[in-house]
Amino acid sequence: MRDVAIVGCGMTKFGRREEDLLELLSEASLAAMKDAEMDQGSVDAIYVANMGAGILNHQTGVASALVDRLSLLPAPADTVENGPASGASAIKNAFLAIASGLYDLVLVAGGEKMRAVTGWEVTDFVASMTHRQGEYIYGVTLPALAGMFARLHMAKYGVKPEHLAMVALKNHENGVRNPYAHIQQAVTMEGILHRPEAVVNNPYIAEPLRMFDCCPVSDGAAAVVLCAAERAKDFPHTVVRMAGFGQATDTHAVHQREDPLDLKAVRGAAQAAFKMAGLKPKDIHVAELHDAFTILEIVESEQAGFFGVGEGHLALEKGVTRLDGKLPINPSGGLKARGHPVGATGVAQVVELVWQLRGQAEGRQVPDAANGFCCNFGGFGNNVLAFVLSRE
Amino acid sequence: MRDVAIVGCGMTKFGRREEDLLELLSEASLAAMKDAEMDQGSVDAIYVANMGAGILNHQTGVASALVDRLSLLPAPADTVENGPASGASAIKNAFLAIASGLYDLVLVAGGEKMRAVTGWEVTDFVASMTHRQGEYIYGVTLPALAGMFARLHMAKYGVKPEHLAMVALKNHENGVRNPYAHIQQAVTMEGILHRPEAVVNNPYIAEPLRMFDCCPVSDGAAAVVLCAAERAKDFPHTVVRMAGFGQATDTHAVHQREDPLDLKAVRGAAQAAFKMAGLKPKDIHVAELHDAFTILEIVESEQAGFFGVGEGHLALEKGVTRLDGKLPINPSGGLKARGHPVGATGVAQVVELVWQLRGQAEGRQVPDAANGFCCNFGGFGNNVLAFVLSRE
Repeated sequence: MRDVAIVGCGMTKFGRREEDLLELLSEASLAAMKDAEMDQGSVDAIYVANMGAGILNHQTGVASALVDRLSLLPAPADTVENGPASGASAIKNAFLAIASGLYDLVLVAGGEKMRAVTGWEVTDFVASMTHRQGEYIYGVTLPALAGMFARLHMAKYGVKPEHLAMVALKNHENGVRNPYAHIQQAVTMEGILHRPEAVVNNPYIAEPLRMFDCCPVSDGAAAVVLCAAERAKDFPHTVVRMAGFGQATDTHAVHQREDPLDLKAVRGAAQAAFKMAGLKPKDIHVAELHDAFTILEIVESEQAGFFGVGEGHLALEKGVTRLDGKLPINPSGGLKARGHPVGATGVAQVVELVWQLRGQAEGRQVPDAANGFCCNFGGFGNNVLAFVLSRE
Repeated sequence: MRDVAIVGCGMTKFGRREEDLLELLSEASLAAMKDAEMDQGSVDAIYVANMGAGILNHQTGVASALVDRLSLLPAPADTVENGPASGASAIKNAFLAIASGLYDLVLVAGGEKMRAVTGWEVTDFVASMTHRQGEYIYGVTLPALAGMFARLHMAKYGVKPEHLAMVALKNHENGVRNPYAHIQQAVTMEGILHRPEAVVNNPYIAEPLRMFDCCPVSDGAAAVVLCAAERAKDFPHTVVRMAGFGQATDTHAVHQREDPLDLKAVRGAAQAAFKMAGLKPKDIHVAELHDAFTILEIVESEQAGFFGVGEGHLALEKGVTRLDGKLPINPSGGLKARGHPVGATGVAQVVELVWQLRGQAEGRQVPDAANGFCCNFGGFGNNVLAFVLSRE
């Protein structure tokens, strides 16, 4: 396998956007190609990450549309879908295509136009990834699964609502420092939990999860340019290598897991990524985790191996995962504050890590970060990918 | 790049099926794994090809569902979408993943449950791959594009309605010999074109294309097991190698092409596949082309290099592409008779070629076929893939 590096990064601002899906993907792609200062004609292939254009936008063949829109014809173009982990899956396939030796330079763009529909339609769209016969027909939604999961985890490990809120507080604080974040507003424990009006301002979505425990519904796109590592020095930035990658699956229906608290796919993906990179969790300086719900950041920080099982909330309490802590998690604001346009998220995680490893993260820079880790969580943990990135 | 071979093949019967998408994908996958006589636990990863589960079945994350359904956990699983060329795109990515050295044994399953919706909804679903602003909003459908294309081609090269009908006749005749075909009924030129009742029995869909010029709307799935070539001899069948692959894109909107009759992406994909294989069109003994509309088989047979431009219909007339001709095209019955469950088609083409190259095509066997070619056509020729397969 040839080594692969990331030589270009771009993003749109996440949030409620006027643009359609193609415009968002184009904006991020052009930013990534500009960042790489590359000759447009040198793109060998493109990959698009998208989960829901069929349902949300009544659109298929998005990669074919984008490759034309970007004037990259006749470059091959494919769309990869893996629920909310579509971004990482697209990067994986671009990575393997370069590793195989067929392509040298590949553009990956992930995006979602979620606010094309509203309210229950979004929740129903996201629920389209649940088990048809075992979950969907009973009205199970992702917030419902996350709520039940949180309740179990909290009871077992003594996690309090305040711990969940700490994730939101930290990530909102980081989001304020990220110009691409959907939500750029700090919140306080008082405001979202303890003041009487919190009952109204921060209502339960799926008890014990409140509104501030759930990511917003966002439009947006992110893009990276991957390159055979041997050619990465031709590009202007500090070389960031895709040092390791892992992917693992788990039962489609959550209730079929022996222990529903044991997110095997997160652990499997992380372990594979660390093994390929030849690094350990203690070697990581910055991480982007998939906090679609606050509880997930806590649990992923454990399953990825950063903290012991049942100790994630303690690390959080001690400030270990804050921007000025020992292992900053979600300096971008995470899904919680940056937002979660599902197809974009896995790509956006990698973009944030590259910016951190290059030292370009400005107001939210983790000092001297050399190794980064990210985890993109598909389904309710049924298909998870992890990457380890290293600065050369 | 490591060489890659196909060691297992399976298909469901195409047609109007009672089963849901997962059941169809499972049936084809189990057949392919059984054909390979493999140890189930040895699957390193799976790829699903599907175009429309979001729109047709309100389902996402199909690969995550399938990997669990097949008890292949925790194998990585991704879905690849490229309109009606999703099948070939999924095979391409599985091929590159093996070529990279990461995986040795990969299952690819393509499927579509199209008859979950009916009538205009299917046409509208297929039209979801057209250009949003330049085609879709004006009511352009795929039959409409094919109709306009056929009219131009017929005027330029003297192709008659009888030539189009010859494609249907040949492919229906082949379909009778294929137990997996959706339509297993021979038709006559008289019956579909010249008898007075043909006006009713074979009405215009998009003039000059009649019903018998268009593929049916089918449910179905097909699957292949790909393997690093160095390990292919461990499996029971004659080794069939993926000798060459090519993919090319063209303008998303058909009207933006300098010459709408010039299907550049077909030519580009075919040339790349032949180049990688080190073979020429004259070396091919059997081909599966994407005859979603009869005119496409004629034009693809030219653009792939089997006949001169404007001469495809003459070869057809002479019987060159019949089962007993010099270059049999669509011995399976093609999309016209085997059917076209869009996500399955590209995989089904490869399955048919493997059966032909192994000498297992029974009633429709092309004698001593050693090299096969297939072309999977996405959009209206905006994203095309081609494979060359060779018997070892």
